Amino acid sequence: MNTENFSLSEKIVSSSYIRQGSQARRGHEQLIRVLLEQGKCPEEGWNESTIELFLSELAVMDSNNFLGNCGVGEREGRVASGLVARRHYRLIHGIGRSGDIAAVQPKAAGSSLLNKLTNSVVLDILRQAGVRSASSCFVVPMATGMSLTLCFLTLRHRRPGARYILWPRIDQKSCFKAMVTAGFEPIVIENILEGDELRTDLEAMQKKIEELGAENILCVHSTTSCFAPRVPDRLEELAVICAKHDIPHVVNNAYGVQSSKCMHLIQQGARVGRIDAFVQSLDKNFLVPVGGAIIAGFDEAFVKEISKMYPGRASASPSLDVLITLLTLGASGYRKLLSERKEMYSHLTQELSTLAQQHGERLLHTPHNPISLAVSLDGLQAHSDQAVTQLGSMLFTRQVSGARVVPLGAVQEVNGHTFRGFMSHSEMYPCPYLNAASAIGVTRGDVELCIKRLDKCLKSLRKAGSAGASGETAPPSAQEDQGAAP
Amino acid sequence: MNTENFSLSEKIVSSSYIRQGSQARRGHEQLIRVLLEQGKCPEEGWNESTIELFLSELAVMDSNNFLGNCGVGEREGRVASGLVARRHYRLIHGIGRSGDIAAVQPKAAGSSLLNKLTNSVVLDILRQAGVRSASSCFVVPMATGMSLTLCFLTLRHRRPGARYILWPRIDQKSCFKAMVTAGFEPIVIENILEGDELRTDLEAMQKKIEELGAENILCVHSTTSCFAPRVPDRLEELAVICAKHDIPHVVNNAYGVQSSKCMHLIQQGARVGRIDAFVQSLDKNFLVPVGGAIIAGFDEAFVKEISKMYPGRASASPSLDVLITLLTLGASGYRKLLSERKEMYSHLTQELSTLAQQHGERLLHTPHNPISLAVSLDGLQAHSDQAVTQLGSMLFTRQVSGARVVPLGAVQEVNGHTFRGFMSHSEMYPCPYLNAASAIGVTRGDVELCIKRLDKCLKSLRKAGSAGASGETAPPSAQEDQGAAP
Amino acid sequence: MNTENFSLSEKIVSSSYIRQGSQARRGHEQLIRVLLEQGKCPEEGWNESTIELFLSELAVMDSNNFLGNCGVGEREGRVASGLVARRHYRLIHGIGRSGDIAAVQPKAAGSSLLNKLTNSVVLDILRQAGVRSASSCFVVPMATGMSLTLCFLTLRHRRPGARYILWPRIDQKSCFKAMVTAGFEPIVIENILEGDELRTDLEAMQKKIEELGAENILCVHSTTSCFAPRVPDRLEELAVICAKHDIPHVVNNAYGVQSSKCMHLIQQGARVGRIDAFVQSLDKNFLVPVGGAIIAGFDEAFVKEISKMYPGRASASPSLDVLITLLTLGASGYRKLLSERKEMYSHLTQELSTLAQQHGERLLHTPHNPISLAVSLDGLQAHSDQAVTQLGSMLFTRQVSGARVVPLGAVQEVNGHTFRGFMSHSEMYPCPYLNAASAIGVTRGDVELCIKRLDKCLKSLRKAGSAGASGETAPPSAQEDQGAAP
Amino acid sequence: MNTENFSLSEKIVSSSYIRQGSQARRGHEQLIRVLLEQGKCPEEGWNESTIELFLSELAVMDSNNFLGNCGVGEREGRVASGLVARRHYRLIHGIGRSGDIAAVQPKAAGSSLLNKLTNSVVLDILRQAGVRSASSCFVVPMATGMSLTLCFLTLRHRRPGARYILWPRIDQKSCFKAMVTAGFEPIVIENILEGDELRTDLEAMQKKIEELGAENILCVHSTTSCFAPRVPDRLEELAVICAKHDIPHVVNNAYGVQSSKCMHLIQQGARVGRIDAFVQSLDKNFLVPVGGAIIAGFDEAFVKEISKMYPGRASASPSLDVLITLLTLGASGYRKLLSERKEMYSHLTQELSTLAQQHGERLLHTPHNPISLAVSLDGLQAHSDQAVTQLGSMLFTRQVSGARVVPLGAVQEVNGHTFRGFMSHSEMYPCPYLNAASAIGVTRGDVELCIKRLDKCLKSLRKAGSAGASGETAPPSAQEDQGAAP
Repeated sequence: MNTENFSLSEKIVSSSYIRQGSQARRGHEQLIRVLLEQGKCPEEGWNESTIELFLSELAVMDSNNFLGNCGVGEREGRVASGLVARRHYRLIHGIGRSGDIAAVQPKAAGSSLLNKLTNSVVLDILRQAGVRSASSCFVVPMATGMSLTLCFLTLRHRRPGARYILWPRIDQKSCFKAMVTAGFEPIVIENILEGDELRTDLEAMQKKIEELGAENILCVHSTTSCFAPRVPDRLEELAVICAKHDIPHVVNNAYGVQSSKCMHLIQQGARVGRIDAFVQSLDKNFLVPVGGAIIAGFDEAFVKEISKMYPGRASASPSLDVLITLLTLGASGYRKLLSERKEMYSHLTQELSTLAQQHGERLLHTPHNPISLAVSLDGLQAHSDQAVTQLGSMLFTRQVSGARVVPLGAVQEVNGHTFRGFMSHSEMYPCPYLNAASAIGVTRGDVELCIKRLDKCLKSLRKAGSAGASGETAPPSAQEDQGAAP
Repeated sequence: MNTENFSLSEKIVSSSYIRQGSQARRGHEQLIRVLLEQGKCPEEGWNESTIELFLSELAVMDSNNFLGNCGVGEREGRVASGLVARRHYRLIHGIGRSGDIAAVQPKAAGSSLLNKLTNSVVLDILRQAGVRSASSCFVVPMATGMSLTLCFLTLRHRRPGARYILWPRIDQKSCFKAMVTAGFEPIVIENILEGDELRTDLEAMQKKIEELGAENILCVHSTTSCFAPRVPDRLEELAVICAKHDIPHVVNNAYGVQSSKCMHLIQQGARVGRIDAFVQSLDKNFLVPVGGAIIAGFDEAFVKEISKMYPGRASASPSLDVLITLLTLGASGYRKLLSERKEMYSHLTQELSTLAQQHGERLLHTPHNPISLAVSLDGLQAHSDQAVTQLGSMLFTRQVSGARVVPLGAVQEVNGHTFRGFMSHSEMYPCPYLNAASAIGVTRGDVELCIKRLDKCLKSLRKAGSAGASGETAPPSAQEDQGAAP
Repeated sequence: MNTENFSLSEKIVSSSYIRQGSQARRGHEQLIRVLLEQGKCPEEGWNESTIELFLSELAVMDSNNFLGNCGVGEREGRVASGLVARRHYRLIHGIGRSGDIAAVQPKAAGSSLLNKLTNSVVLDILRQAGVRSASSCFVVPMATGMSLTLCFLTLRHRRPGARYILWPRIDQKSCFKAMVTAGFEPIVIENILEGDELRTDLEAMQKKIEELGAENILCVHSTTSCFAPRVPDRLEELAVICAKHDIPHVVNNAYGVQSSKCMHLIQQGARVGRIDAFVQSLDKNFLVPVGGAIIAGFDEAFVKEISKMYPGRASASPSLDVLITLLTLGASGYRKLLSERKEMYSHLTQELSTLAQQHGERLLHTPHNPISLAVSLDGLQAHSDQAVTQLGSMLFTRQVSGARVVPLGAVQEVNGHTFRGFMSHSEMYPCPYLNAASAIGVTRGDVELCIKRLDKCLKSLRKAGSAGASGETAPPSAQEDQGAAP
Repeated sequence: MNTENFSLSEKIVSSSYIRQGSQARRGHEQLIRVLLEQGKCPEEGWNESTIELFLSELAVMDSNNFLGNCGVGEREGRVASGLVARRHYRLIHGIGRSGDIAAVQPKAAGSSLLNKLTNSVVLDILRQAGVRSASSCFVVPMATGMSLTLCFLTLRHRRPGARYILWPRIDQKSCFKAMVTAGFEPIVIENILEGDELRTDLEAMQKKIEELGAENILCVHSTTSCFAPRVPDRLEELAVICAKHDIPHVVNNAYGVQSSKCMHLIQQGARVGRIDAFVQSLDKNFLVPVGGAIIAGFDEAFVKEISKMYPGRASASPSLDVLITLLTLGASGYRKLLSERKEMYSHLTQELSTLAQQHGERLLHTPHNPISLAVSLDGLQAHSDQAVTQLGSMLFTRQVSGARVVPLGAVQEVNGHTFRGFMSHSEMYPCPYLNAASAIGVTRGDVELCIKRLDKCLKSLRKAGSAGASGETAPPSAQEDQGAAP
């Protein structure tokens, strides 16, 4: 309420109480002021009432909520269903304009503010999470894969003659498809085995560049977060190579914001070499629904160029989700989630290691992977041929989600390219294994339940013998998905 | 509640009442049954309680809502904010899989059902709206422009050598950008003036095909819904030409679902010639928030190919919005909106015509445009040079949204192409004009307020004389946007 | 947002758009201003966004929502469940104070405003509905019966020696219990039959007063809204008698606000004689959930005395419901409901009359009852003894709610008093009958479905013959309830 | 969804996923089953989605939500505002019937279940909290005071000749008014000072009974939870006296459920003597909004008698709130709140004691009061006459809510009775003091902020000297309220 309305209220309810109420209102306004002024994630989270007040303030600034508006255009932000209007806080006009997804809309001052603030708050968090020199970013309502596609399409205009993208192998369909969809030919650089770890083959990369010619290469497309025993790419070295050959470098940092190691790699890569853009998922890093990504970079002009490539307006929904979430958590809340994740990673390492030993397996030694772990399944396979895939099904039906069994020798064709040893990021990984990850939001309860159920499954499989007594039929596609999806 | 729980309830509350309650529940179940069985938009809309019951049923089927789930993957559908969880009805996993945006997800049976049902219900409505032979469609959480880009990227794999897209001119930035973003060179086919109308120049199209060679042309990219005095493209003839030369044909049907004429054109085009895909906006046709589109076609395999091009999962938010909306309206409610729109189109025609006469202008004669109308501003311009643009600003500040003033001689560069006479779809339209549209959801109140305010503005401008007395400064970008955005 | 925050926003989003947004905000503030200033129901209803904005403004003024509050009392408005907090818009402190349910609370300026405004808006509506000279009222979170009890308890302090309440018979348990619970002895004045109507026996009333002595009588307790063939009491004459003997007069106006006739009776009664208080249900007149009533009167001091009788704070929930509802409808929306009801009353009269004729029954002639109608069931009873009660069960299982069958000769004891001919307001009504009412919110669909189902039931009962073929077992208590409950 | 709908879903989405979804649904059903079967508070809390699923299941069983219902009664559960319908989960019919607030309603099987289950779950919690032998209880949508009134009104019918209620003094207006409103004369039994504590004067009670005659006494009305230095009444001894003289005994246990001591007193009293009913607030014990109470007892017949006294239906809102809250917390969550409160009581004791010493005051020794504490303000008063009341205002404006300053010598008339030393439960307490309480839901942050602000205020007042430098004007009624309200 404005000053006039507070004054009127004093005639109805004792003025000292109203004054206190009005002062309390200023408390909320003050939080909003700091946000508008600094464009940063507040250190302490806001409570729900401040957030809802803020969102309703934004909504009244959009033309579809003007009390006296009359609309004779073809896009007026009308909504037929009250359920839909409410779930979007009546912010209907989406974000961006035909020319630029980051631009402001004349019809929607509130949605425009939302868009700008979200990008600004998210940039702040990316910096706090380790990429201190990131200069610019924007939230885009597309998953990581399609966002990578947008980056590649933007680069095409800079390098019209280029046909290839160099890509250290990672067995996830969508990042492979991202290149194919953009119309380029992915050049797969197989990983090399170092101990248990699969790491970037820098020499092969170097050789391939010389073979194809730098001018024919659109970019190098590297990856941080991935399933063990693959580990994040050697970003620093790749960035230096890119700089040397003047080749753009796009990093798939899908769920890497949650790991200081991944973020550090990007920061270092950009410092010593060249990184043009890095792309991360909203849902995997910020505990929001699937459907958004952040495209970030170190050169504001290039990031702007990408945002201008998106033709037309876009859904504000992912921006709204991440803004609500970050305002709720505050920077301190987000840091807390990160440190709990780290702690849980140690715990999971410990527990899996112990369990592995008890079952005659071992935890693969993958210290460079800060999120995902792998336990060998040699013994299980020796016991029975189908046991490995059976384990996958058993875990699925026991509601252990995210645990992923990788057998040997799977072959998969994706858009015309044949991947041998699919799911293992390698044509010849020495053993089958099981993955488990400590991702943001994981709880001690998750870890403990998983270990307990895994233990039971392993015991039951061994008891069953090669007959495959459990007889459970795996939904094989379920299993494959856990392997293949970013 | 299941049978057991109803029985238990009978021990607490008199069994005849519980039986009646349980029978009432079956009423809701019955509605859901019909939806699942037929996959069609229910004839009569559901009430909010049935919809919410249904959505909560879907949500409990997703693994993130399993009571006993433990998650050790990197994507577990965790949500940090209760506000966010609730506004998505706890459907967090989005839609699609890395391989295909239309595929089902193992972790999310409920979200998968939602996705399938939405596509099925939307197809039913497209057919009912006039494209009876459409065979397949899917909702994609991207605006029309980016969805067109996805179609073009898919076609690239079929026609790897093609470089050009033939495009009858329409002055909307995003559909032009859609082609550029996809990496193609748009070939602009200027429209020809027939009476007041701007129509497709079929001869120029034919000539251009011969000049460039069919094999070098990715597709023809035509448009239905547009601002008057441009009218929908001659789809039938274009489709025949495409068929003859074996050139794909993609139709931008942005807000055409609401018009039986636009839909009829598509249906006819596909019958007599070739249309590969037609793309329409969710928000402009279904009264939902900005951010989604429907990609539809007549060949299921091709539509599937497009859906497989989208790399990675995607936001379920636009699907959820359109499903809720169509279940709320029912087919009968949607038809009612369509017929009210048509009625309002006649009313607006009448009112604008009368107003034009009173001010010495005239309603342009554009009978082929079923949605948008244009009123000449010759007289106003004669009166004062700035009056035309000033009118735009005045309408903006008076909360007449969507009315769009098009002056003569605007020049605009978009991605390297120079458009003369920008906003008017023609290098040399004879007069400046004002647009107003009767779009879905428009009310009699909208029309009346618009006419009243427009009348006042015109009077005030004339009184002001060439001095431009109102002195209002237009936010010119606001105006431009109304002209240029799809 | 305040001025400062709007200014900051102009640095982020173009200032002309922000200015328009800020102006739009003033539109909402303006509506709130008028409400605060006049304390009347707005003529036109508010939309949901204005209402929610207003409620969230109220909530931030309550101490439980102060960002810097620390609470060391025993009642701090803490809420354990987010679901609960949200459903009350975070207005937790209830209304009133230990001394007075209408008083303001220091800890809750917002809730206090809500309380005051609700009472003021409701008073405005009571006046508009016909009791123009009502001077004061308050919403109390108790049903009509308990609210009547509160009135009687208040009168006790004014008339400590009185033991009796004179009460023209109406067969509803709760208004009888209201007197017994308050500790008084109800003196039942039997109605007299005039034509088909049951009306107040003024002579018997007069005689009883003389017999008992005015000083021993706490009050006369009369009734307006009731089931036909009883009609509203002769309020004018009763009010004159009360004035003459200096006896207080409390009117049970349970669902009478919806009828201009009932309201007119009260207005007239107060003008020519004495009415101390009139009590009406919130749910039955304002389409809100069960649980609240309005206690109103013509002497502000006496109404205040009643409000001070309520010991302790009270739920704000009914006040919140009625305020939201009246702001949503606006005075014009409420009037529209009233006139639709009236229209539906004529329609129901017509339809029931026709139906009755077709089945050899007749619509009882009860022109003084503006809401409820009765159809004789003589013929049905002649046909079979159980048919009348069977009809009740059949209607219940066919989801005709509110239709009520009244057999002859029911006897019921309530708190020690024996009612012969219970449900019919008379010891000897000439025929059994069926009631149906046209109450606020009733639709044409309700009437038509009811007539159709009733027709089917009557046909089926006649066909069945005295064997009672349908064999349906009535839940007799269901039936009774429909008869006995106010 | 029912079995049929799950089968249909298997045709749309892979059947193994649907089966898992259907199994997940059973998980929720299972929780509901246990609740229906046992009628007890679940040990572990439910999550929001189970609760909302359950409530929507209840709602569909109410006739206002029947899809085929037609209503021709005067109370059909219609709701005009969507906001109102949603906030009540579409449970509109309230609870109870004209004859009994605990009875089931034919029109509302779902609401009836809600009502029964709530009463049953609440009884379980009362037992767990210490009154193991409680046999029956019900939630009533009235505050503690009005609920006590209802108990007294019920007793009147058992003891028609009784006029007096004996009441050990406690300075809260509403419990005094509860007796007056019911029409009885409260006989105030002054407390006696034992050390710092004010305790029940059993001898005076005994004498008063003899003086007035047991048959003239309606009941003894004792109190557990109260502000220090008063402590809970000597319930055991009072119960014995009541048993001896055959006098009913009603206990005001306003916020005593949160304290095992208060609950133990009631349990013991009932075991060794006589307690007819004990009444507690919902909001103060269960962290829900103001407006409900629980009336409980040891004799099911008597509790039933009270519930039958309430004339008419009642709001379901308080029942809904407490049910949602207890299902959310679970028994374990509620116990956790209780033990945290106890812990915070020790912490507050410690902190206040230290603070008192620093300012030359002392924490009064009141070990029998398990919730409230008092710090002497002798020194402050010696310093300046107004300082004590000024402290109250200062705390109010600094958002320390619930801290309550009690000066010496206040005189207050309540309904004709003059209380000397009002707020201090005694005509002559030796010193002024400040109260603070550790009530359920209090946090460490509350305690720390309170201590810090209190420290500052005390310092500033002493610095200010007798001039009263702060110059802050107290809203005196705010202060008084904190003293006088239950």
